[in-house]
Amino acid sequence: MGKVLVLHGPNLNWLGKREPAVYGRETLDDLNRVLNETARQLGMELRIFQSNSEGGLIDRIQAEAGWAEAILINPGAFTHYSYALRDALAGMSVPVVEVHLSNIYAREEFRHHSVIAPIARGQIAGFGFDSYRLGLRAINELLEKRNRI
Amino acid sequence: MGKVLVLHGPNLNWLGKREPAVYGRETLDDLNRVLNETARQLGMELRIFQSNSEGGLIDRIQAEAGWAEAILINPGAFTHYSYALRDALAGMSVPVVEVHLSNIYAREEFRHHSVIAPIARGQIAGFGFDSYRLGLRAINELLEKRNRI
Amino acid sequence: MGKVLVLHGPNLNWLGKREPAVYGRETLDDLNRVLNETARQLGMELRIFQSNSEGGLIDRIQAEAGWAEAILINPGAFTHYSYALRDALAGMSVPVVEVHLSNIYAREEFRHHSVIAPIARGQIAGFGFDSYRLGLRAINELLEKRNRI
Amino acid sequence: MGKVLVLHGPNLNWLGKREPAVYGRETLDDLNRVLNETARQLGMELRIFQSNSEGGLIDRIQAEAGWAEAILINPGAFTHYSYALRDALAGMSVPVVEVHLSNIYAREEFRHHSVIAPIARGQIAGFGFDSYRLGLRAINELLEKRNRI
Amino acid sequence: MGKVLVLHGPNLNWLGKREPAVYGRETLDDLNRVLNETARQLGMELRIFQSNSEGGLIDRIQAEAGWAEAILINPGAFTHYSYALRDALAGMSVPVVEVHLSNIYAREEFRHHSVIAPIARGQIAGFGFDSYRLGLRAINELLEKRNRI
Amino acid sequence: MGKVLVLHGPNLNWLGKREPAVYGRETLDDLNRVLNETARQLGMELRIFQSNSEGGLIDRIQAEAGWAEAILINPGAFTHYSYALRDALAGMSVPVVEVHLSNIYAREEFRHHSVIAPIARGQIAGFGFDSYRLGLRAINELLEKRNRI
Amino acid sequence: MGKVLVLHGPNLNWLGKREPAVYGRETLDDLNRVLNETARQLGMELRIFQSNSEGGLIDRIQAEAGWAEAILINPGAFTHYSYALRDALAGMSVPVVEVHLSNIYAREEFRHHSVIAPIARGQIAGFGFDSYRLGLRAINELLEKRNRI
Amino acid sequence: MGKVLVLHGPNLNWLGKREPAVYGRETLDDLNRVLNETARQLGMELRIFQSNSEGGLIDRIQAEAGWAEAILINPGAFTHYSYALRDALAGMSVPVVEVHLSNIYAREEFRHHSVIAPIARGQIAGFGFDSYRLGLRAINELLEKRNRI
Amino acid sequence: MGKVLVLHGPNLNWLGKREPAVYGRETLDDLNRVLNETARQLGMELRIFQSNSEGGLIDRIQAEAGWAEAILINPGAFTHYSYALRDALAGMSVPVVEVHLSNIYAREEFRHHSVIAPIARGQIAGFGFDSYRLGLRAINELLEKRNRI
Amino acid sequence: MGKVLVLHGPNLNWLGKREPAVYGRETLDDLNRVLNETARQLGMELRIFQSNSEGGLIDRIQAEAGWAEAILINPGAFTHYSYALRDALAGMSVPVVEVHLSNIYAREEFRHHSVIAPIARGQIAGFGFDSYRLGLRAINELLEKRNRI
Amino acid sequence: MGKVLVLHGPNLNWLGKREPAVYGRETLDDLNRVLNETARQLGMELRIFQSNSEGGLIDRIQAEAGWAEAILINPGAFTHYSYALRDALAGMSVPVVEVHLSNIYAREEFRHHSVIAPIARGQIAGFGFDSYRLGLRAINELLEKRNRI
Amino acid sequence: MGKVLVLHGPNLNWLGKREPAVYGRETLDDLNRVLNETARQLGMELRIFQSNSEGGLIDRIQAEAGWAEAILINPGAFTHYSYALRDALAGMSVPVVEVHLSNIYAREEFRHHSVIAPIARGQIAGFGFDSYRLGLRAINELLEKRNRI
Repeated sequence: MGKVLVLHGPNLNWLGKREPAVYGRETLDDLNRVLNETARQLGMELRIFQSNSEGGLIDRIQAEAGWAEAILINPGAFTHYSYALRDALAGMSVPVVEVHLSNIYAREEFRHHSVIAPIARGQIAGFGFDSYRLGLRAINELLEKRNRI
Repeated sequence: MGKVLVLHGPNLNWLGKREPAVYGRETLDDLNRVLNETARQLGMELRIFQSNSEGGLIDRIQAEAGWAEAILINPGAFTHYSYALRDALAGMSVPVVEVHLSNIYAREEFRHHSVIAPIARGQIAGFGFDSYRLGLRAINELLEKRNRI
Repeated sequence: MGKVLVLHGPNLNWLGKREPAVYGRETLDDLNRVLNETARQLGMELRIFQSNSEGGLIDRIQAEAGWAEAILINPGAFTHYSYALRDALAGMSVPVVEVHLSNIYAREEFRHHSVIAPIARGQIAGFGFDSYRLGLRAINELLEKRNRI
Repeated sequence: MGKVLVLHGPNLNWLGKREPAVYGRETLDDLNRVLNETARQLGMELRIFQSNSEGGLIDRIQAEAGWAEAILINPGAFTHYSYALRDALAGMSVPVVEVHLSNIYAREEFRHHSVIAPIARGQIAGFGFDSYRLGLRAINELLEKRNRI
Repeated sequence: MGKVLVLHGPNLNWLGKREPAVYGRETLDDLNRVLNETARQLGMELRIFQSNSEGGLIDRIQAEAGWAEAILINPGAFTHYSYALRDALAGMSVPVVEVHLSNIYAREEFRHHSVIAPIARGQIAGFGFDSYRLGLRAINELLEKRNRI
Repeated sequence: MGKVLVLHGPNLNWLGKREPAVYGRETLDDLNRVLNETARQLGMELRIFQSNSEGGLIDRIQAEAGWAEAILINPGAFTHYSYALRDALAGMSVPVVEVHLSNIYAREEFRHHSVIAPIARGQIAGFGFDSYRLGLRAINELLEKRNRI
Repeated sequence: MGKVLVLHGPNLNWLGKREPAVYGRETLDDLNRVLNETARQLGMELRIFQSNSEGGLIDRIQAEAGWAEAILINPGAFTHYSYALRDALAGMSVPVVEVHLSNIYAREEFRHHSVIAPIARGQIAGFGFDSYRLGLRAINELLEKRNRI
Repeated sequence: MGKVLVLHGPNLNWLGKREPAVYGRETLDDLNRVLNETARQLGMELRIFQSNSEGGLIDRIQAEAGWAEAILINPGAFTHYSYALRDALAGMSVPVVEVHLSNIYAREEFRHHSVIAPIARGQIAGFGFDSYRLGLRAINELLEKRNRI
Repeated sequence: MGKVLVLHGPNLNWLGKREPAVYGRETLDDLNRVLNETARQLGMELRIFQSNSEGGLIDRIQAEAGWAEAILINPGAFTHYSYALRDALAGMSVPVVEVHLSNIYAREEFRHHSVIAPIARGQIAGFGFDSYRLGLRAINELLEKRNRI
Repeated sequence: MGKVLVLHGPNLNWLGKREPAVYGRETLDDLNRVLNETARQLGMELRIFQSNSEGGLIDRIQAEAGWAEAILINPGAFTHYSYALRDALAGMSVPVVEVHLSNIYAREEFRHHSVIAPIARGQIAGFGFDSYRLGLRAINELLEKRNRI
Repeated sequence: MGKVLVLHGPNLNWLGKREPAVYGRETLDDLNRVLNETARQLGMELRIFQSNSEGGLIDRIQAEAGWAEAILINPGAFTHYSYALRDALAGMSVPVVEVHLSNIYAREEFRHHSVIAPIARGQIAGFGFDSYRLGLRAINELLEKRNRI
Repeated sequence: MGKVLVLHGPNLNWLGKREPAVYGRETLDDLNRVLNETARQLGMELRIFQSNSEGGLIDRIQAEAGWAEAILINPGAFTHYSYALRDALAGMSVPVVEVHLSNIYAREEFRHHSVIAPIARGQIAGFGFDSYRLGLRAINELLEKRNRI
């Protein structure tokens, strides 16, 4: 249940084309199909947006502020330095779940630190597309709990 | 599906008694009930073990080496310094999923770094009991994929 | 006196909606009204621009290079990492005054460091809308002194 | 409006004599004249004190605790290490505004960090005597707001 | 020989206008003329693109993925923090050559570190327009070698 | 007055045998005799426990949770890295007093930092057995104050 | 027994007026009354001195060098940077005991490090006025032991 | 000659099963056989003990304090953080030799630092089982020299 | 055009023999042949010198001070710590170009920092022998420009 | 020749009484006698001042600004943190020579760094009273050179 | 068995003359006699070389490249910074064993880090001449294993 | 009085030719003339040696071990990293005085740290040739004091 804004950060539109050893061969369209199917099962409504631009992501977050009940975001490389994106997400009154396809803690040093994580509700990393699917489930539980209260 | 060793690190037996503002009021028994129910739904077999002792956890990991097909672990405070636990987990040939009840990246500085994460398959943090449930689901997917191949 | 380019960085369009405990409940329109009134009192001409995009701010700085005699900027979160913005401002031959609504030195560690400050003429932080008003006054004095010479 | 304690830290009595390339040729007397004039315009009452001694400044802060409604301070080099001065200022129940003649962020590395800033209401740096004048205005606004409530 | 995407990062469109002491008085048009002439001599085809926006550069890299056989990039200030740009370049299967007009190792501390360099084939810095010309020659050699194999 | 759990960390059972230049020649039994005598004077009840095992100490802390009204602990070398012990102590609702026989700040660098201190009520170091005796007195005062309220 | 110089560092004369949430509402006079009473019980002679000035404290330490058999000092904020005070204390041939009202390890990062501790005999922190009382007792024991030899 | 306590740290019982690429395929039993044979050649008496528990190792060190004339230890991952183990070893009056199967300086960053080494007589790393054999020889020489004196 | 001193640092005489995966199979003689050919094309005169000794390189730099109009140097491992070599090069009044066969920024951490770069005119890295050839071209341009003035 | 202000920092009045192992048994009076004798030989006029107070030293520096042609200072522990003293000295237009009785680079870590040195003409450390005598000679040469010009 | 190049780094020719408290009174000739005797026992052939010059050691390593089957090296102080020596050793295709007379981890901080260790097969430190003898034995085993394959 | 080995480190033979703004226009011959004259006045015997080679300096130190009663050294750039030179000097039983022409603490960051200073008797920096002359005087005093005892 619930309305969820799904945000894909920079280079995620390049999925399946870029470094298949790390990210696999499936594309962003494949991922979005998986997301929509999971959403359907959970009775969720999704709006999905990808941008290579920090400003583009922030603009969209603000634009969906009235609609979204939760945000699922893979900030891509912005994870590691975009304090502007962090501020935008922190400015929303809805829970944010951060996901990563790969296990960022097993990669280059600079990927071990997320500036987004401190303002997120939780983080899921390392399970490929399943990171997203588990993220939607996590949001589902959060929204259900909120409604029960 | 699959046989999963579930490990609870130090002070998790104290759940519901310790710092309820951070960890909630439900106990380890409540958590284990939730885990067993989820396992039943997923057709998984669980062996659950808690210890306040680093050596106790390592002994158990080794003891279940022939049985376990995956490990779900909340290393508690060992997350931040137990290289011995890391070595024990890395020595297993099965996937390891690290979970945390709270969002460790939104707490004290020393909790931001996990020495376990680099050898885990993935990490889930911040969703309370749901971190564990999502962890079981993540393992389920990993084992299903392995079997499909 | 003088022509001043006023730049609002990322998420400042969200003013009044985001974290009111830190930034208050007044909006960017309220702020701009205050700025225009102060400008009128000081005989200044303002051009005001907000963007959530680093590139957008840089483009605008360059576009106003022939017009602006000074720049008043609240770089928002770009304060802490946007060396590109710094280069753009340093490339202008006019004085730059950096302002912040909140006292950035009393907040999270990462907000204590400004990459903009070393190339600014001066910095004013912690006085809410008054930071901007004082900033305009500071510019007024700078331009008056320049003219006296 | 309001009663303001103005504190000049070490070597500010040397103004106009010391490093004119950085601090200009005007003296502390010139500065105090400017301050008194601005205070008169704003209906403020000032008590001005300079000391080269950390203990002297702290003693004076405590002595004026019953009188002062705000403090305007240029801590000079104490900015960078005097935790005792910080504690004295934090112990007052009135707002503190920190000012600097030069842009401390464009000078030696050690001048980039202020131990006073985290307990000040705000900071103004880089505008010469105008830093002080803007500081008085900032205090004026703070006190007016307080009175309006 | 070969098809080369030439990318100019932020503020390079400001060349000749900004800090002539560091970057000289010639403009980006002058530089592009030099590049095109060198390309003609080497039998290369160029597509040249400048942007002040990180997202704009990434979008263009992806757009030219099917065409470009090599990339020559001066990332400007993005050199020092844009992991998103790094990921975009690393995602291409063609060699990347990083160039800088000035010797970045003889300037401010923050300019000494490049997040792009680890994924580039090589780096050339300090020779003004000649950095670019030498970069084109380096690419020419790389492509010739590839063809010989 | 009050019920106090006294915990001796690793190698304290070795007291009087190990490095007498640092720790003196009296044994743990001698120390415990002193503690019991002081407790008798103050009308306190003590339970004393030593372990070389982190898990053993945590188990005992939890076991005495219903009985102890305060904890006096010399964490030995665990002082410097046992976040698990810290969590166990922080999980108790009673005051914790940390004591050290030697002045840890006058020894090797690694002994200057305590991970226990931030969650303790207070710390006493450098007075040999008297550190413990003063610790019991400190607890006595704390419990008396609590009772007076 | 013994003659003890009691030193109160900067802002301790402000006790009871400054940050009562941290330091309580009792004043320095109250504290000195408690100290004198404890001294009377232990047969000690006290000379008590407070100064906001580093030089003042050092002058007094030297002045009492012939009289004092021990020093009890709360260096206040000088704890964290006054190497001059450290040298003065180290230059005395009598034991020095460092006390703090609050638990400095549970406060701001800069308060975690004491430059005095390495040359003190021991340190007591976190017990309010009792830190001082325990400090006098610790000195009493030290002097008694010395006399027994 | 001499009585030697041989200690195997955590996960060494897993030898031959864990990461054979790093540690080879021979087991702890194989290693102990080699050790006993070398001891026989050198006329040494060995007591061999493995534990995954820090406390277990410390307990055993203390238990053998009256018997052992030297200690040969591979602290496993405890090498890098167990100050408790370090204290236990330092508390013994016999020489300690630290050995490692692999070259710890050619592996992960965290393995480059040993907290045990500063209190050991010497260290041997990188020669597989031969590290232990050479360690026994080193001890043999140390004990012979001691006896010659 | 111009007289160029070409310096090969330590182990470059080992080229083709050492780590061919990193440096290829061609030898220093092959490299020098390429250099001489390029020099002939550009009308340059070369003096080439290799040494494994820091002092040897410095001696030669000084010896050629009257002859050389520019220096092309691959400092090998001296790049990372030889401040003596840096001083020698800085003491010359001719431009210095630093070259590296491999991309030093994509190798071990210690190779990312050059103590030579801040005093060089420019740096070229990552193109194998072509790094040198491009370096000669860069020098050619520098000398031509100088002559034009 | 010349008029020299000689400044002794904190605890130097304690010379001969404090830590004779480090500083010897001669007193400040002895040192001043030596200084006056050397001055007489060199035809210098001295004014000598000691203070334990940072403010006292700064006041005196300013007071002698019209008289002194050079300053010889042993800043004692202020060497390591008194930026206020540094500013006072830098504000004088005469050469400053920093001296130390002991070799500060062979003592505690914190004594290895001088905040005064960067603004001094030179530094002499490690020769006891001779450090001062050599300092006077150094000043003598500096003043003679100045006069020759 | 095998041909071994034995390298003594700087100041080892000074053995027995320099700091006997650390290095003992025996000379390099004594050490070489011990080495030759051990070599005779193991059927090894040695070439022994000492140099105080980094370049001298590298030259010799290269000169013996065709002969040596292994290298035993005590790099002396070069251990801590000679990346050139490291490159020379890494460039050889034979195993390198690093030895130290003293336990470098129990001495000054700067001696705790070896730039040679990461490219050595193993390291032996702290056993005086026996470090070398054990090193020869370690090499003997390595060469025997190689031959068995 | 006394026999003094004077050592000039790398690039000092270049004096008067290199960076005259920093080092002046006088040459090493001029400096040596000054040194010899001062020695004659003090009744000293000098042996003077310059080398650009670390090994050359160490060789010479050892060669003069039987003759020299003191060493005066300007280690040039070796000051900052040559632990081998440090070991050679520390290995001598005679006092070492370190001198620098310029004030190394007022130059680049890397020149602020001397690895030689901790083993020297004292250090003199910043007085040009006078640094050496004062160094000879310092040695003269040291040797005279030694003889008086």
